[in-house]
Amino acid sequence: MAKQADLLPVDVAQRLILDQFSRLEAEEVPLGDARGRVLAADTVSTLNIPPFDNSSMDGFAVRSADTGGASHRTPVALEVVADIPAGSSALGHIEAGQAARIMTGGPVPAGADSVVPFEAVEEDGAVIRLTSPVSRRACVRDAGQDVTQGTTVLHAGTQLGYPQIGLLGALGCAEILVSRRPVIAILSTGDELVAPGKTLRPGQIYNSNSPMLAAAVAEAGGVAIEVPSARDDPEAITDALRSVPHADLILTSGGASVGDHDHIKGVLNAHGRVEFWRVRLRPGKPLLFGRFAEKPVIGLPGNPTSSAVTFELFVRPVIRTMLGAAPYRPRITAVVDDRITHQGGRATYVRVRLRLRDGRFHASSAGPQDSAMLVPLAHADGLLIADEDRTEIPVGADADVLVWRLPPEAQEFSSR
Amino acid sequence: MAKQADLLPVDVAQRLILDQFSRLEAEEVPLGDARGRVLAADTVSTLNIPPFDNSSMDGFAVRSADTGGASHRTPVALEVVADIPAGSSALGHIEAGQAARIMTGGPVPAGADSVVPFEAVEEDGAVIRLTSPVSRRACVRDAGQDVTQGTTVLHAGTQLGYPQIGLLGALGCAEILVSRRPVIAILSTGDELVAPGKTLRPGQIYNSNSPMLAAAVAEAGGVAIEVPSARDDPEAITDALRSVPHADLILTSGGASVGDHDHIKGVLNAHGRVEFWRVRLRPGKPLLFGRFAEKPVIGLPGNPTSSAVTFELFVRPVIRTMLGAAPYRPRITAVVDDRITHQGGRATYVRVRLRLRDGRFHASSAGPQDSAMLVPLAHADGLLIADEDRTEIPVGADADVLVWRLPPEAQEFSSR
Repeated sequence: MAKQADLLPVDVAQRLILDQFSRLEAEEVPLGDARGRVLAADTVSTLNIPPFDNSSMDGFAVRSADTGGASHRTPVALEVVADIPAGSSALGHIEAGQAARIMTGGPVPAGADSVVPFEAVEEDGAVIRLTSPVSRRACVRDAGQDVTQGTTVLHAGTQLGYPQIGLLGALGCAEILVSRRPVIAILSTGDELVAPGKTLRPGQIYNSNSPMLAAAVAEAGGVAIEVPSARDDPEAITDALRSVPHADLILTSGGASVGDHDHIKGVLNAHGRVEFWRVRLRPGKPLLFGRFAEKPVIGLPGNPTSSAVTFELFVRPVIRTMLGAAPYRPRITAVVDDRITHQGGRATYVRVRLRLRDGRFHASSAGPQDSAMLVPLAHADGLLIADEDRTEIPVGADADVLVWRLPPEAQEFSSR
Repeated sequence: MAKQADLLPVDVAQRLILDQFSRLEAEEVPLGDARGRVLAADTVSTLNIPPFDNSSMDGFAVRSADTGGASHRTPVALEVVADIPAGSSALGHIEAGQAARIMTGGPVPAGADSVVPFEAVEEDGAVIRLTSPVSRRACVRDAGQDVTQGTTVLHAGTQLGYPQIGLLGALGCAEILVSRRPVIAILSTGDELVAPGKTLRPGQIYNSNSPMLAAAVAEAGGVAIEVPSARDDPEAITDALRSVPHADLILTSGGASVGDHDHIKGVLNAHGRVEFWRVRLRPGKPLLFGRFAEKPVIGLPGNPTSSAVTFELFVRPVIRTMLGAAPYRPRITAVVDDRITHQGGRATYVRVRLRLRDGRFHASSAGPQDSAMLVPLAHADGLLIADEDRTEIPVGADADVLVWRLPPEAQEFSSR
């Protein structure tokens, strides 16, 4: 058995893998398909937003200088000479003593420098009366106040959520330059595997890793190709690895340990190379990284939870790097509610639930930490990081947690 | 102008809207398409996981009773009579004095009750020697230890991420019963609107709300239909609302305020009804809820940020309710890094950035809080909730924040 000291630390293994990947080429997608994609270049505005001075209220555009002496005793009367809805292109202009009816978003006409809302004037046919002065630029949104032409508004590497889609729309962008999504082939190996939906015979189990990893790849921003699972046979595995020449990366699951039927390492040695094998990590020690011909291969352990944890630590960062996005999950600090212990010698990632209490996150075990067990994984909100020499974390201590999902809010919003 | 007291508090408006919606019907989707969908029913396991007692190590299955007296001075010799890889269906059995070679995941043969790893035995042809006793059930994963047949493993309302997909795969589920995704039609109104990609003429702006809201609907789990934007004309708006009879909900954007060309309320009054109009909220006061014929309509304000905030508070919860999922965004407590002030009278949702420091979230303003400005919205990580009478939040105070996204982790993982 390998000594722990011979195994690679997690961060060294991450660096060895990530150094071999870089951002993929860019492609254009329609704005309507850009959600979740990652910007391949900075977005520089080609226009001002708003493009023109416009009204922030429904009311009247006026010349502030005309209103200086207005009071209840000496109201100022102005002649309404135009009606400017939003979208008006007849910009017109007003002279001294004149006003223009204007709606929110309507372009402020030349000559006017401010807007007075309906409720602040008295209307009398085509005349309005003001009883107090209007300050310059009141209720006027200046052209370019949100975005000045030539400004960088979003940086390359930004993943596009709906607010960013809104901003790109406001800039008039119909096609968005984003990173191509990496194509990730997934190959589960094992004589015992049967696809979900089929009947299990004695000794068989369902192949859960292929659908799980395919979903994980998609969530990270990649495109998954599920290769039919291969038997524990070097030739079958070689054929399967050959079947995906267009993949940017191949993930294998299973067959990476020391059993008689663990053939991944042998196949890579025969048809490429093994860059490293085994990390100081629990669960997930038998992680393997290598090349099949020149194609990168990350070999994940077959136990479902080991597979998920190594995906998080080594594969998701690769996908994010190929997208040009921030590689790592957000990490929060939580108060430990259950005493956590582990064997030491390897960094241990504990499946935990998260709860918010008094403004702090609290973490408690999501169940037994056996790497073959899926239920605790499916009930976890994140992975608590117990460093290799921190073998006991007492109740009340702080620990770092990689967050999969925040606990949802149960109550309604208060508007106290 | 309406008095603040006449406006509906946010939570009352939320309740009035949400009470009119319930979970949609269920539909089956293949496991490979189930990511992000919401379970429509509890998942009850029809099998044990693992389905059979199996080995957690590569080694030899033995009868623990045979090994009781083993020591370095008196090793116990066992005859290896079988070889059990994972996936083996010839389960076989062993008698006293016998052992079976077994790989991780292989079914433990009848007669054996424990597994001893390779590194703990001495192999000598078809004989192995043990120098210490093996305890009962050592290195054996019991059938059903992860899931017992008949157990509920996931609850209705669970949104399926990859760990849950893995669990469903392990249960053999090829088709998953999920809630149908609600169809949400989006209609932006305004004479000034031009679709992104076209040329702006004077007085025009790009329609950013339609693509933004379409992305927001998709992110919340709905299916968006973008109706071409309508001019500020009651007949055009009526025709547009009639064009989406299959929608579960219609969102309008713009035309909900008090301007001369704000026609949404009039159209609903003519062809259905207005249930309520205006909430004690900033930005987003002119929110409107009603029916066009019997079809529910939520009228969002036209200012982009008002539109986004009211989507978050009133539309996303409706979509989540129709999916049967938790309606509200996670809400965290953050330390305020910038003094926050507002006018009071209405609950105010401040666009903020979030940063993690010393285990706490810190919130700072994402920029000017003008409801027409998109850049601060696009740079925000969440919405800080400033209640209507909490008009000043000093630096260092705590405040609740609805989280859009967690700040990404910049550094590598440590494996100290």
